[in-house]
Amino acid sequence: MRLRNKPWAKDRIAENPQYVVANPESHKGNWSKVFGNDNPIHIEVGTGKGQFLVGMAKQNPNVNYIGIELFESIIVVALDRLIEEKLPNLKLLNVDAATLNDIFGKNDVERVYLNFSDPWPKNRHAKRRLTYKTFLKRYEDLLVDGGEIHFKTDNQGLFEYSLTSFSEYGLLLKYVSLDLHKSDFEGNVMTEYEEKFSNAGQRIYRCEVKYLND
Amino acid sequence: MRLRNKPWAKDRIAENPQYVVANPESHKGNWSKVFGNDNPIHIEVGTGKGQFLVGMAKQNPNVNYIGIELFESIIVVALDRLIEEKLPNLKLLNVDAATLNDIFGKNDVERVYLNFSDPWPKNRHAKRRLTYKTFLKRYEDLLVDGGEIHFKTDNQGLFEYSLTSFSEYGLLLKYVSLDLHKSDFEGNVMTEYEEKFSNAGQRIYRCEVKYLND
Ligand SMILES: C[S@@+](CC[C@H](N)C(=O)[O-])C[C@H]1O[C@@H](n2cnc3c(N)ncnc32)[C@H](O)[C@@H]1O
Ligand SMILES: C[S@@+](CC[C@H](N)C(=O)[O-])C[C@H]1O[C@@H](n2cnc3c(N)ncnc32)[C@H](O)[C@@H]1O
Repeated sequence: MRLRNKPWAKDRIAENPQYVVANPESHKGNWSKVFGNDNPIHIEVGTGKGQFLVGMAKQNPNVNYIGIELFESIIVVALDRLIEEKLPNLKLLNVDAATLNDIFGKNDVERVYLNFSDPWPKNRHAKRRLTYKTFLKRYEDLLVDGGEIHFKTDNQGLFEYSLTSFSEYGLLLKYVSLDLHKSDFEGNVMTEYEEKFSNAGQRIYRCEVKYLND
Repeated sequence: MRLRNKPWAKDRIAENPQYVVANPESHKGNWSKVFGNDNPIHIEVGTGKGQFLVGMAKQNPNVNYIGIELFESIIVVALDRLIEEKLPNLKLLNVDAATLNDIFGKNDVERVYLNFSDPWPKNRHAKRRLTYKTFLKRYEDLLVDGGEIHFKTDNQGLFEYSLTSFSEYGLLLKYVSLDLHKSDFEGNVMTEYEEKFSNAGQRIYRCEVKYLND
C-alpha cells in the first residue's frame, strides 16, 4: 500500500474518538459497552482503507465490526468513509496487530477477517504473515470457542502456506473456494485489493477455518 | 475413461498372475512376501492405464507399488506396459476399492496415491468420491501410523471438497500446491489424465495429507 505523508492524519484521528477508538486497551473484556449492545463482534486485521468493513457493516447491522490498521495515513481514509456513512456498528483501531491481546480478552470476538494480508513471500519472513502460528495463537486468545477466521487473498503462495499453517495449528477447514468470483458464495463484499486484483484477471482464494474445542 | 469391450482382457489378466495378483485377499498382512522384500508399499487407487505407477516404480526401485483398478478393459493396458517393462516392484489388482480392507490389513501400506479420481460433482454422489470419509476410514485401516495420502487432480470442485473432507476427518495438511506444474515440486511423474488436462491448459492441484496418531 502506498504511504503518502499526511501530516493532518494524526489530528483527524484524535478528533474522532467515536470512530477511531482511543486507548483501546481500556475496553478489554468490555467491548459490548463501546457499541452499547450485545451483538457479536467481528474484527478485520489489516483493514486498509475500510471498503470491506463499511460494506459489511451496512449489510449486517446486527454485527459489530472493528477494523485494525497500523498506518495513520491509510486508516484515515477508512475514517473519512465512516464519518460520511455514520455507521453505529463500525469502529476502527489504529494499532499494530501484534498488540491484539492487550486490547481483546478471551471471548471478546466471534470472528477474525483477514483480507489480502501482506504475503511476505520470503521464507525467512514467514513469521510476519498474519497466518503464522504466533498470530493464530493471538486470535485464539481473543475468540470465543468455535470462533472462526475468514480469509481472502489473490496470492497463491500465501494461500497455500496458510492452509498448511491452519492445519498444523489444528484448525478445522470448513470451507474453501479456489476461485471465489466464479463460486456460488453469496453476499461477498469486495475489498479494495480484491477489486484491483480481480479486475486484473487474478483469481481470488477464500477459506473459513474454525477453532475447535479440545 | 472410455470403456472399449475387450473380451480377451479377462484371459490376459488370468494368464499373468505375477503382475495382476490373483486372490489378493490371501496376502492380507503378508504383502512383503509377494514382493520378496521389506520395502515400503505404496498403493494407487484408480490406477487407470498405469502410466503413473510404471514411472514411479522405475524412479523408486526401493518402493513397492500396487495399482488398484476396477475395470479389466483398463487395467489390461497397465498390464501390457508392465509385461514390457518387467518391473519387479509393481503389481496390479483388478478389484473395487470398496474391498480394500479385505485385501490389506493395518500397517500393510505406507502411502495411498489418488490421481484424477472421478469427481462425482453432484452432492448426492459425494459418497462415491474416493476422498469421502468412508474411504478415508478404509485407508486409515490399512496404513501405518503417520501414513499419507498424496492426491492430484485438475478438478477444482473435487479438490476443494477433498481439502475440507481431509480436515474434517482430522488429517494434517502437510503440503498443498494450487498450480503443480508451476511449482518447485521435484520428481513429478505425470499420469495419463494429468498429461491430457495440462496440455489443455488446466491447472493441476496437489496435496499431501497425513494421518496423525491420537
Ligand atoms: C495489502 S493491504 C490489504 C488491505 C485491505 N484488507 C484490502 O483487502 O484491500 C494490507 C494492510 O494490512 C495492514 N497491516 C499489515 N500489517 C499490520 C499489522 N501488524 N497491524 C495492523 N495492520 C497491518 C497494512 O498497513 C495494509 O493496510
Ligand atoms: C479418471 S480415471 C484416472 C486414471 C489415472 N489415475 C490417471 O490419473 O490417469 C479414474 C480411474 O479410477 C478407476 N476407479 C474408479 N472407481 C474405482 C473403484 N471403486 N475401484 C477401483 N478403481 C476405480 C476408474 O475405473 C478409472 O480408471
